[in-house]
Amino acid sequence: MANFELTRTLKLPAKTKIVHLVMDGLGGLPRDLDGKTELEAARTPNLDALAARAQLGLAVPVRPGITPGSGPAHLGLFGYDPLEFDIGRGVLEALGIGFDLQPEDVAARGNFCTVDDDGLITDRRAGRIPTEFNQKLVPLLREVELPGIQTFVETVKEYRFVLVLRPAAGQTLHAHIADTDPQQLGVPPLPARALDEASEPTAELVNQWIAGAREILANHPPANSLNLRGLAKDPGLPKFQDVYGLRAAAIATYPMYKGVAKLVGMEVLPVDGEALEDEVETLRTHWAEYDYFFFHVKKTDSAGEDGDFERKAGVIEHVDEAIVPAILDLDPDVLIVTGDHSTPAALKSHSWHPVPTLLWSRYCRPDGPTGPWGAEFGERACGRGSLGVFPATDELPLALGHALRLNKYGA
Amino acid sequence: MANFELTRTLKLPAKTKIVHLVMDGLGGLPRDLDGKTELEAARTPNLDALAARAQLGLAVPVRPGITPGSGPAHLGLFGYDPLEFDIGRGVLEALGIGFDLQPEDVAARGNFCTVDDDGLITDRRAGRIPTEFNQKLVPLLREVELPGIQTFVETVKEYRFVLVLRPAAGQTLHAHIADTDPQQLGVPPLPARALDEASEPTAELVNQWIAGAREILANHPPANSLNLRGLAKDPGLPKFQDVYGLRAAAIATYPMYKGVAKLVGMEVLPVDGEALEDEVETLRTHWAEYDYFFFHVKKTDSAGEDGDFERKAGVIEHVDEAIVPAILDLDPDVLIVTGDHSTPAALKSHSWHPVPTLLWSRYCRPDGPTGPWGAEFGERACGRGSLGVFPATDELPLALGHALRLNKYGA
Repeated sequence: MANFELTRTLKLPAKTKIVHLVMDGLGGLPRDLDGKTELEAARTPNLDALAARAQLGLAVPVRPGITPGSGPAHLGLFGYDPLEFDIGRGVLEALGIGFDLQPEDVAARGNFCTVDDDGLITDRRAGRIPTEFNQKLVPLLREVELPGIQTFVETVKEYRFVLVLRPAAGQTLHAHIADTDPQQLGVPPLPARALDEASEPTAELVNQWIAGAREILANHPPANSLNLRGLAKDPGLPKFQDVYGLRAAAIATYPMYKGVAKLVGMEVLPVDGEALEDEVETLRTHWAEYDYFFFHVKKTDSAGEDGDFERKAGVIEHVDEAIVPAILDLDPDVLIVTGDHSTPAALKSHSWHPVPTLLWSRYCRPDGPTGPWGAEFGERACGRGSLGVFPATDELPLALGHALRLNKYGA
Repeated sequence: MANFELTRTLKLPAKTKIVHLVMDGLGGLPRDLDGKTELEAARTPNLDALAARAQLGLAVPVRPGITPGSGPAHLGLFGYDPLEFDIGRGVLEALGIGFDLQPEDVAARGNFCTVDDDGLITDRRAGRIPTEFNQKLVPLLREVELPGIQTFVETVKEYRFVLVLRPAAGQTLHAHIADTDPQQLGVPPLPARALDEASEPTAELVNQWIAGAREILANHPPANSLNLRGLAKDPGLPKFQDVYGLRAAAIATYPMYKGVAKLVGMEVLPVDGEALEDEVETLRTHWAEYDYFFFHVKKTDSAGEDGDFERKAGVIEHVDEAIVPAILDLDPDVLIVTGDHSTPAALKSHSWHPVPTLLWSRYCRPDGPTGPWGAEFGERACGRGSLGVFPATDELPLALGHALRLNKYGA
């Protein structure tokens, strides 16, 4: 909370503008060929020129050695220590499919599973049924009714779905409820057990829903039962306007990132298409209305997850060409270029490696050339930059400082 | 505790192997001759070649500016914040002489002292009596008997000894008891005063023992009295297997390091001899049985304490030649080369300077040449490395990450 107490107390009204350009999974690892990472191998003349006038560093998303999921990684970028602020898995899953979660909703991740005649689990993922089968089952589950509660069931993919319970006005649900998935085979699913007294009525409702749903599923093997995990509500995170004094907007094309941005109080702006150019168009259109823009690029991560070094480098080159000059043309006061975590093509997954980060403002103290290949934006250059190895949660306070949006602390 | 909560929750079973090579007191200071430190002046072709493919940084053992003792410094390397986890001085002293301390034992550091006819202290160290005199007194003190309690008295050296009280089965002793040493002359020793109610019966026993011991010592000036300090029990530290999921082994030749390793749940492996080659032989013999090896080299520190720059550089060269290639031949997944603290020959003592550290793994992001003299393992090269200046407690989480032994945090 220290960050927030400080920025909340010191925040100043200002007209300055901050852009937080986040290439998902930006950090990489060297390929054998020339020892360069995806970012180092990409031709990025605009980012390299910016690096010569900027400060570089390596951002640690959660803690050294820890590989973050997308939710915690973005919380960190937004200044919320992911170990202190937790978005429940049910909420993340609902946000991930773009469900319009309300503050009083309880969301759960659902898994179809297979049970035998004695009700013992034989497959926790129901043989990974195809998404099309899932889409046939979900409408059936929508028929299960609960007294005074609105229920929503939505397909995620394969054996995964989302259940949302929405209480009537004035009613409150509580979500300290244990998973029903016993995480092993040959035993029955567990009941939804309340972990505190306040959650007991909600657990009762959840068990009613489960009973009705299992009755329907009994005739649909291999998905003849289900489990619920990660029951959770909107965590009620502090909001950008309150803690930073920023009117904040999110420009993203994937539901999960829009969802997390909404939880911290950002306005999610409409993007007409899925191309980087469409996102830039949204930035231009709404430039006058906000102080802070979270600009999310998804495809660096997807390419990394696919193990496609060249495609990831290609996305970075596209960002360099299509986004960076367009942002600079708008004359921001602070531009941070970073990622939420590393997704090295070599690992085909998120990783623990710290994330190359560039901070430019007219009041930054430029590093000059720090890279082994001169002035450039790359992991090695960032490893020798003056931001050092720093917690990602520092980015927002640094941005506010460089945007002249914070008062002096003490006399 | 955050480190432990995270690693305990996220730890994964794996077959990867981690070696933590610790040269005691590794960090140094430049000599006038050529401005190089002990490590920089040493010819270390193997470490230098490794440095070119590794990540470098400077580890802070406790906090910036703070000089650690060996106990806290090693706790830090093992991931235990030395300010949070405390090994009492009595326990450290017992471990330091290789005493086989049991979890229910209470250990105290003892100092012989001199008192005058009125019982007032005239020399807190009994004129620094020779160790031989100490060895004559200790058997006499073993005669002091306590009801239902086993007592052990062991020589450390000069005026220092260790007292251990071992309760009968089912009985519990408590060690929140103040030192008897008033830390000034011209006053009598203090009674052993319990600092909480639970410790009162133990304090009573300690005072009985002191009375018996002083009666015996009265005829042996200048060691005609004694004081007890740092009464303590095994602190019950979290264990490596639990918090990291590692079967851990220690290879060390000095009692203190074996003792601290045992407190964190490592198996202490037998070493047949005192040479570095003997330690390597132990590593080879037990390679298949463990996931993590703490490999301790003592003589860098001894040479630094003696102010012998050349000898310290020589030990480092010996490590480079005899240990580093042998470890690499075993094909570890992660190798960290570091020290527990600095012991610059120029200071002839432990110091607060952060410790040069090298982390190699096939999944590290190599720094390339960072040193003023090219790619090398040295203080200056580490000062520009991508690990930055980091808390020593980060080493274990970083090792686990690079060994692919941690699950993703959050979705």
